[in-house]
Amino acid sequence: MAANIPTTRSECEARDSADPLAAARTAFALPEGVIYLDGHSLGPATHAALKRVQTTAQEEWARGLIRSWNDAGWFELPRTVGAKLARLIGAQADEVIVTDSVSVNLFKLATAALPLARGRVIIVEDSEFPTDQYVAEGIAGVTGAELMRVGVGKGTDALARTGGVLIKSVVNYRTSLVEDVAASEEIATQAGGVIVWDLSHATGVLDLQLNAHGAKLATGCTYKFINGGPGAPSFIYARGDVAARMQSPVSGWFGHAAPFAFDAGYHPLEGVGRFAAGTPGVLSLSALDASLSAFDGVAMSDVAAKARALGDLVATRTAELGLESISPANSLARGGHVSVRHADGYAVTQALIARGVIPDFRAPDAIRFGVAPLYVRFVDVWDAMDQLADILATRAWDRPEFLRRAAVT
Amino acid sequence: MAANIPTTRSECEARDSADPLAAARTAFALPEGVIYLDGHSLGPATHAALKRVQTTAQEEWARGLIRSWNDAGWFELPRTVGAKLARLIGAQADEVIVTDSVSVNLFKLATAALPLARGRVIIVEDSEFPTDQYVAEGIAGVTGAELMRVGVGKGTDALARTGGVLIKSVVNYRTSLVEDVAASEEIATQAGGVIVWDLSHATGVLDLQLNAHGAKLATGCTYKFINGGPGAPSFIYARGDVAARMQSPVSGWFGHAAPFAFDAGYHPLEGVGRFAAGTPGVLSLSALDASLSAFDGVAMSDVAAKARALGDLVATRTAELGLESISPANSLARGGHVSVRHADGYAVTQALIARGVIPDFRAPDAIRFGVAPLYVRFVDVWDAMDQLADILATRAWDRPEFLRRAAVT
Repeated sequence: MAANIPTTRSECEARDSADPLAAARTAFALPEGVIYLDGHSLGPATHAALKRVQTTAQEEWARGLIRSWNDAGWFELPRTVGAKLARLIGAQADEVIVTDSVSVNLFKLATAALPLARGRVIIVEDSEFPTDQYVAEGIAGVTGAELMRVGVGKGTDALARTGGVLIKSVVNYRTSLVEDVAASEEIATQAGGVIVWDLSHATGVLDLQLNAHGAKLATGCTYKFINGGPGAPSFIYARGDVAARMQSPVSGWFGHAAPFAFDAGYHPLEGVGRFAAGTPGVLSLSALDASLSAFDGVAMSDVAAKARALGDLVATRTAELGLESISPANSLARGGHVSVRHADGYAVTQALIARGVIPDFRAPDAIRFGVAPLYVRFVDVWDAMDQLADILATRAWDRPEFLRRAAVT
Repeated sequence: MAANIPTTRSECEARDSADPLAAARTAFALPEGVIYLDGHSLGPATHAALKRVQTTAQEEWARGLIRSWNDAGWFELPRTVGAKLARLIGAQADEVIVTDSVSVNLFKLATAALPLARGRVIIVEDSEFPTDQYVAEGIAGVTGAELMRVGVGKGTDALARTGGVLIKSVVNYRTSLVEDVAASEEIATQAGGVIVWDLSHATGVLDLQLNAHGAKLATGCTYKFINGGPGAPSFIYARGDVAARMQSPVSGWFGHAAPFAFDAGYHPLEGVGRFAAGTPGVLSLSALDASLSAFDGVAMSDVAAKARALGDLVATRTAELGLESISPANSLARGGHVSVRHADGYAVTQALIARGVIPDFRAPDAIRFGVAPLYVRFVDVWDAMDQLADILATRAWDRPEFLRRAAVT
């Protein structure tokens, strides 16, 4: 843990004053009286996204109608938005497209990766995000590949042994543990295996260097630290030379080299574009496009550094409250959220939300505090921890309305 | 063709005055000076959808943040919107969900249908919409099933012979020819085969009776005659008893019986819900939800009857101009658009658009006139045909700017 962790609120204020990212916060339409520590689940709206949604709906759709496919650049959006995302993950502009959901993209990538791998095995750790595990199971069912479910941190061992296809998150959704992409890719190369990275909890908060670290295939979420909006479409990264050897199982017309020629046979686009499938959701994609402008001129190394510092502050103060962290103490091994255990974590989370501090909860007992560097300040974390301290000291969480579970947690 | 086709503009006005659907047009935010005959490609915005997009973005996302998954009903949207769509296609409310794109849904349904079919064959006609053909090819590649591409109208013959899985549009995108769902389903049942219906050009304009006609599986588009917005998500219909025996190949967490329990193993939802996959795109889904209110209180039999009458008017007037129709003359066998051939159809379409009349073009030579009954009037068709007559008589289409193709046609 870093040495210079603020120990008073005024030290937090000083850190905020010196923050090179301080100006980025003005891009966000944050509600009054809310400290938002849930950017690892759903990022907040930016003013640009709110404006863009209106423009897309009222000008491009209502006035432009069908003409906007050409005139408003709708047709190019999956690629133009992908190119903007590429910088944030250390990829070339033409290696990223925006399409579908993470679940669908994991399916497409891992299924298409099977013929490239030495072993016909789909590997997933039992600590992976559930949809990654479920999708792996589905791929095994439809392709006949072997499903290999392994324990926490055993994915690369299994990869080395089998030369199969490993689905792996760069940042674990519960613990926030960061995987070493470069080291894992070396293992994959030696074993003749392939890794499909899930960047959902990593994109927009870590200084990802996919090209430099030898990553071949990845997908990820844009509604978390990228702030693209609820259910914003996912992205796919595929290194050019790798994409060229792959066939998407879901070969829809938007992945075709000439979608409006209406040819009978399927001829995929060059590169990552072949992983597009159906007509893109323009409203959601436009909001995402505008949201990305919050990253204009921002260095991802600054973002990652601030996430580490804010995370250290959460870790220190929750430790003082006697809460056990399940996230790495070493900030270099930690993503943009810090998770602590509490037997009544769900109720504690609800009590915090009732006071305007919004973290989230993951079963069975983890409270996750997300520290999105573009809009979370040191004072926000400080004040949130004060509220947490009070809620625990007074058992304010122990009320029926906080103990009752909602459909989405 | 029906006998009572208007022969003057004032007869058109009389028909509009007597139209039981006349009031529905007020729901739409149509631009001034435009006659929109492209509802079979992208439906126009409704006032309700424009308002809803703003509410969802500014209230639910920006203010409600993560809380809106529960408080604003986001989590339920795929089912609640599906239930509204169900009435329009003659299905039970719990047999329809909204999710993904048509391409992805065709993949999921046809792949999952293979184990139910006697023959391990994917059948598609070479006149099908391209993405249906491409997806069939992809399924064959990933599952090892045989791909059987057959000629126009030969799908049910192949189905009878093989007992395989047929992907088939109820309304053909080019010709507008309507398939007989009930007769085809009888053939499927006798052969031990399964049909996956593509309702993209049929939903919202025909009086579909999926339950009554024995349909088991279908998907379709919501951005055409349903007016859900550009790239609005697709829907899936699966009859309860059929869905129960199917496994979606793309087994994502939103198709899980308890997505927030974060179980390691995949346990699908009852019924059609198992075909959900990733997080739904809330902005697009909300716009679609609001768009559907234009159908409140509308009888689909009235919609279908008006589509037939408007189509007859297009067919009569284009025939008078010497244009060859590729759509059925019998309006009962025709969907919501009428297609005519012209060697320079692309340029003619562009010339019409320049005059504020918007049809569309499909390669190689078809101009499609869509007659969406909720907002197209008899006088609109009359005036559009007057423009077409003038453009053809004066060769106004023969200009460089009309002959140059854009990316999207």
